Amino acid sequence: MATYSCRSREELRMEYKKLMNRYEALKHENLKLDMSRGKPSQLQLDLVSDMLTVLQNSKDCIIDGLDCRNYGDLAGLKCAREYWADVLGCKPSQTFVGGNASLSLMYDLIARAFTYGLKDSPRPWCKEERIKFLCPSPGYDRHFRITEKFGFELITVPMTPDGPDMDVVEQLVEDPMVKGIWCVPKFSNPQGYCYSEETVDRFANLKPAAPDFAIMWDNAYCVHEFDGEFQPFRDIISLCAEAGRPNMVYEFASSSKITFPGAGISVMAASEENIAYHSKLIGVQTISYDKVNQLRHVLYLKDRAHTLELMKKHAQILAPKFELVLKMLRAEVTDKGIAHWHHPQGGYFVCVAAMPGTAKRTLELCKKAGVTLTEAGATYPYGIDPHDSMIRIAPSLPPIEELEKAMQVFCTCLKLAALEKYLGITLESVTDEK
Amino acid sequence: MATYSCRSREELRMEYKKLMNRYEALKHENLKLDMSRGKPSQLQLDLVSDMLTVLQNSKDCIIDGLDCRNYGDLAGLKCAREYWADVLGCKPSQTFVGGNASLSLMYDLIARAFTYGLKDSPRPWCKEERIKFLCPSPGYDRHFRITEKFGFELITVPMTPDGPDMDVVEQLVEDPMVKGIWCVPKFSNPQGYCYSEETVDRFANLKPAAPDFAIMWDNAYCVHEFDGEFQPFRDIISLCAEAGRPNMVYEFASSSKITFPGAGISVMAASEENIAYHSKLIGVQTISYDKVNQLRHVLYLKDRAHTLELMKKHAQILAPKFELVLKMLRAEVTDKGIAHWHHPQGGYFVCVAAMPGTAKRTLELCKKAGVTLTEAGATYPYGIDPHDSMIRIAPSLPPIEELEKAMQVFCTCLKLAALEKYLGITLESVTDEK
Repeated sequence: MATYSCRSREELRMEYKKLMNRYEALKHENLKLDMSRGKPSQLQLDLVSDMLTVLQNSKDCIIDGLDCRNYGDLAGLKCAREYWADVLGCKPSQTFVGGNASLSLMYDLIARAFTYGLKDSPRPWCKEERIKFLCPSPGYDRHFRITEKFGFELITVPMTPDGPDMDVVEQLVEDPMVKGIWCVPKFSNPQGYCYSEETVDRFANLKPAAPDFAIMWDNAYCVHEFDGEFQPFRDIISLCAEAGRPNMVYEFASSSKITFPGAGISVMAASEENIAYHSKLIGVQTISYDKVNQLRHVLYLKDRAHTLELMKKHAQILAPKFELVLKMLRAEVTDKGIAHWHHPQGGYFVCVAAMPGTAKRTLELCKKAGVTLTEAGATYPYGIDPHDSMIRIAPSLPPIEELEKAMQVFCTCLKLAALEKYLGITLESVTDEK
Repeated sequence: MATYSCRSREELRMEYKKLMNRYEALKHENLKLDMSRGKPSQLQLDLVSDMLTVLQNSKDCIIDGLDCRNYGDLAGLKCAREYWADVLGCKPSQTFVGGNASLSLMYDLIARAFTYGLKDSPRPWCKEERIKFLCPSPGYDRHFRITEKFGFELITVPMTPDGPDMDVVEQLVEDPMVKGIWCVPKFSNPQGYCYSEETVDRFANLKPAAPDFAIMWDNAYCVHEFDGEFQPFRDIISLCAEAGRPNMVYEFASSSKITFPGAGISVMAASEENIAYHSKLIGVQTISYDKVNQLRHVLYLKDRAHTLELMKKHAQILAPKFELVLKMLRAEVTDKGIAHWHHPQGGYFVCVAAMPGTAKRTLELCKKAGVTLTEAGATYPYGIDPHDSMIRIAPSLPPIEELEKAMQVFCTCLKLAALEKYLGITLESVTDEK
């Protein structure tokens, strides 16, 4: 079948009519489906719930001669730091283990930069006249929102299948007002791209004008393959050190999508100098993070090898969902020539690049049929997608039957929105004509 | 026996010599005792460790139709908000349940005031030329340090047995640069004073010039009696509302000294308007706090009545330690006329007001004999006690035998320091003479 762009107006009208009927039928099912957030499903939570009883009694709480129930040990239990060092490929002394949210570790880092300045800052960022922050887009809305809330100017950097466009990045960091960049190096949110070796090298070798330029390296999906074998990644901490700027990078990860999304443990990895600098400041904010939960995690997850085994089980739950999404997109959308997408091998999203000018409309139609997706534009700074094109699909939460229904709605709406554009009409105007 | 001030120089010399011998003997015991921090003892941790197994399986994690393991519910589980409302005497809608540290909730509140401003702020505090913050002293060093780190000017307010000197407070808040005050209304840290009804009323009726003046009401010891029955306290949230400034107060509490110090849950209580305002900002910092631990706590602690029963058991462990400290002070120090102290009925500290100019020296001598106490001056802004007099004793951590030994050292050193002052000599000078 020909792409929409090659069909006659009459053919498009017929297709539109057919889809409209399908849409109305789906609407009558009174669906209430949510594909808006990368939330693990209940099956995944059940999978790891043995963790609840890892610690049974007082004796279990003593580790390395320390009682994890009491105050103290700000940078985290020794064994928790060793665990994350094993996962990330850095040294335990380069880790700081936090609470249940790596997002908080990121926010707090930016907040400290704002209030006190970073290790190599000439002054606190709140004393700078203007601050710019690089946002490879599409990207993670919560990243962008942090730097937006602090009043920084968000600069969009185009994403490529190899990661952020490094030509653009290298040019932009010549501006001393540019203070940092958000990165999701493996299975990027939302496209699922993995930064290429060259991209990672160019990051490590960046020579930003700002002495306190911060690479926010959110390795959120570092062990999150759902398709195929674990893909090793390089240790950005040592790469930056070798390139002569050890304090330029802050790496983040968490167990939110390994154990419990709301009750995992998180980590910030950075140079020892950075860990020392920030520990001192974090010591003003808190006495210590939840070490009982840290110990629970270490005993349950053991090490990277054992964690990867667990991730295989998560993959068994996740893979069929991603396959379904991709299969349906292929079957229903590919030959229409109105959208394209990457086939990710890990992470939590499929990102559909719809025909420019149709993303918002697609999601509006979905919503009316009871299917919620991440807001259009959310993956761009300030929530504005200049091409109104990117749509993030998060297939992890719904059970597979619901997901299939939701994808029927989505594919229908995606095509309706494209046809409206081609035909210069809207569903509402057509319906009103009746 | 006469007070030191009434004794002859010769008598003082003899006393000094006697104490010096005792001190040297104690030093030879090579002690290593810590009374520096209000840490619960292992017995107390063991007391509550059944909490570890409250949640056994997936089913246990569902509450009010919500899965506490997943993301979401930023302000906390419904049942956790109800629990804290019951403890504090406010409404669930006036609570925000946080992670393991109420100190973080306090720091983060000040940080948001700094970056964004509070609900009624004309501008973010970082845009103010000067900010002053009131510090009733002696007080809690970690409170003072937060506001010091943000660059505020700390103003000492004298403490009285009824709470902060409200005449002074009422006068100081006429200055619009004065933006807030730190309070520990029940069993104040370190003196163990409870604010009187009049003090609480005068707080609720404060009319500060700054529209965004913040009362930081750290109700850390709200249910922490170790001596006698629970002493009810009034709900400061509704008192401020009744007095016409509902947004002026932020109350904090935690289970750190009810369950696990490092792995409890915390709460911020404030007007609904404040909770809404801050929830929106906290939503930039995190997706949600650890709700698994919230549920664990609610199931274990149940409600205020049940919590008070548990606190009786903590009291059984704590009371003998406080009695010992007070008994030894009475026996060894009272008749010397060189120090005074309040006999607290709850909280975690005994605060000894030593002869002016002898606190530092006392602690120096203690340290040399292997006994660590909270640093002298720590209970004052900038760590400087103008009279070099206040010493905070934290008897909770050591077992009773160790505590007795530590108090022998302390009483000896307190007297030595006073005698040095009277005699114009030091231990070292005397020892050198030999």
